Amino acid sequence: MPILRNPCYAARVFLFIIAAANFFNSQKYNCMSTLLTVGSVAFDAIETPFGKIDKIVGGAATYASLSASYFTKPINIVSVVGDDFPADMIAEFNKRGINTEGLQIKQGEKSFFWSGKYHADMNTRDTLDTQLNVLLNFDPIIPEGMATCEFLLLGNLLPQVQMTVLERMAKRPKLVVMDTMNFWIDTQYDALMKMIPLTDVLSINDEEARLLSKEYSLRKAAKIIMAMGPKTLIIKKGEHGALLFNGNNVFFAPALPLEEVFDPTGAGDTFAGGFIGYLAKTGDISFDNMKRAIIFGSAMASFCVEKFGPERLLSLTDKEITARVNDFYDLVEFDLIDALNI
Amino acid sequence: MPILRNPCYAARVFLFIIAAANFFNSQKYNCMSTLLTVGSVAFDAIETPFGKIDKIVGGAATYASLSASYFTKPINIVSVVGDDFPADMIAEFNKRGINTEGLQIKQGEKSFFWSGKYHADMNTRDTLDTQLNVLLNFDPIIPEGMATCEFLLLGNLLPQVQMTVLERMAKRPKLVVMDTMNFWIDTQYDALMKMIPLTDVLSINDEEARLLSKEYSLRKAAKIIMAMGPKTLIIKKGEHGALLFNGNNVFFAPALPLEEVFDPTGAGDTFAGGFIGYLAKTGDISFDNMKRAIIFGSAMASFCVEKFGPERLLSLTDKEITARVNDFYDLVEFDLIDALNI
Repeated sequence: MPILRNPCYAARVFLFIIAAANFFNSQKYNCMSTLLTVGSVAFDAIETPFGKIDKIVGGAATYASLSASYFTKPINIVSVVGDDFPADMIAEFNKRGINTEGLQIKQGEKSFFWSGKYHADMNTRDTLDTQLNVLLNFDPIIPEGMATCEFLLLGNLLPQVQMTVLERMAKRPKLVVMDTMNFWIDTQYDALMKMIPLTDVLSINDEEARLLSKEYSLRKAAKIIMAMGPKTLIIKKGEHGALLFNGNNVFFAPALPLEEVFDPTGAGDTFAGGFIGYLAKTGDISFDNMKRAIIFGSAMASFCVEKFGPERLLSLTDKEITARVNDFYDLVEFDLIDALNI
Repeated sequence: MPILRNPCYAARVFLFIIAAANFFNSQKYNCMSTLLTVGSVAFDAIETPFGKIDKIVGGAATYASLSASYFTKPINIVSVVGDDFPADMIAEFNKRGINTEGLQIKQGEKSFFWSGKYHADMNTRDTLDTQLNVLLNFDPIIPEGMATCEFLLLGNLLPQVQMTVLERMAKRPKLVVMDTMNFWIDTQYDALMKMIPLTDVLSINDEEARLLSKEYSLRKAAKIIMAMGPKTLIIKKGEHGALLFNGNNVFFAPALPLEEVFDPTGAGDTFAGGFIGYLAKTGDISFDNMKRAIIFGSAMASFCVEKFGPERLLSLTDKEITARVNDFYDLVEFDLIDALNI
């Protein structure tokens, strides 16, 4: 029944091309919502099989806010750096609509520093060095204008700090997305168990989901974790894509099979930034829209890994993002009607 | 633009329900093509975290032909067993339209036996015992009526045996799908390199693809392997789905996130059987149809792992298969038109 299939497909391609040109900077999203990102802004030293860089700007809030800035403005950052942090990077943030009023600069102190080396498979890495520096006593002060943000992304931080941020919001945000890591599951379990129930969307990787739920099957793990409180759970599987759970609904976003993965640093935060940025732009937190948001997040992450650090996130165009999202569509698109040949 | 989206979606659901009832046993596939499966028919002993079974019928041709039998009939098997192989299993094959005329029964000899134990993650396993028995000197004799089959599935066997089968076909089949394994890549490289170029579709797992291409990136590996000859390459990633490559086209079939994986034995062969069975039923070997075929193969594999050995493949209904394929559709379905909110 090509009469049915082709108009749908042709309409998609046609409308998509027209729409793409207008999507990113359109004014029609009067629902465009304010977004607050809390997380590290830091320096990284990275070694991959493709090269080595001794000092590059990194941190969860850096990747997430750069990623989100392609969807919504302003992005607000709450974080802390030392006086070693480059002023031109702050200027770059501002140029991109990232408000750094909540970025504390501690005189005489050094920024958070992480150093890691990736194995040949690019999926596993060794942490060579972690210097908390300014993050050690981070007090997340939220400028007054940011305390009413509707979308809140809590990057991977001490659960108590995440809790403090939430308590300091003037009103409960419309959507709280949080990340955490195995280190906090192991060492801050009780604090984490107070924070997780306050979250709408928990975004963790497969290893963390298994650790948190004590269950190997990700489907079972998801049930256990959602029973802890979050209505929605994202399980990131790196090069194997990501799963989105909500009640009995499950959606799978593939990862694009790339020829080269140059540097995976920040991919998870870039993913989270694209996810919440898309939701903030559209103002729609339905499951169907989260499916789209996770595809946009995956597209942003697929760019992130193409160059060292956040470099690729500084040179993207809306057209490239649209084309990449279309690649994701094509990657999994198949026609069931034709499958049954009616 | 809901005016566009909804009719497509509603039409899909409606037509799918109607079509599903007629698909499997419809007579409209006058192109329904003959299928020959060559591979082991054997006994397995399996231990998983969920239980243990000392002797169960297994083998690549068993799984593949049972799986394919839901799509096309007859399925022809060429294989060999000892006189220990149960007559009632052969009767079961025949009942399902699997022609066992080419299944040699060697008097006074024993069937191929494999014993394995799965680790807790169900993705890795140790082989505890392999007794080649009748497979040691397997001469694949092809009954005359089977030598003109249009679809040929060469299960994982000694490359020289696969080659002999192909040479003994009366005419070059329309489609040759072959499987192999790391053991043959390591020990029979030259023979394998003669066989692979004669294949239309090579179906291997990610580890084997990396071993064969000496390249970690699956996208690059695919290019290298297709340059060896096969126009189409399937890379199976177990619980992470499967990739289908053809020229510059790539398609990703997810694996369904299951609550329980009871026993993964035979999942790859079940996948291959569903894939080629669907192609043989529809007679269409275009890339678009292979995308559908790989989804049907994945659906069959998702059933296979639900019970020990091939047990689940003996109790399936067409309705269950249709519903499962629909689950795959829903798992990855998202709407791009709505994503751009036009």
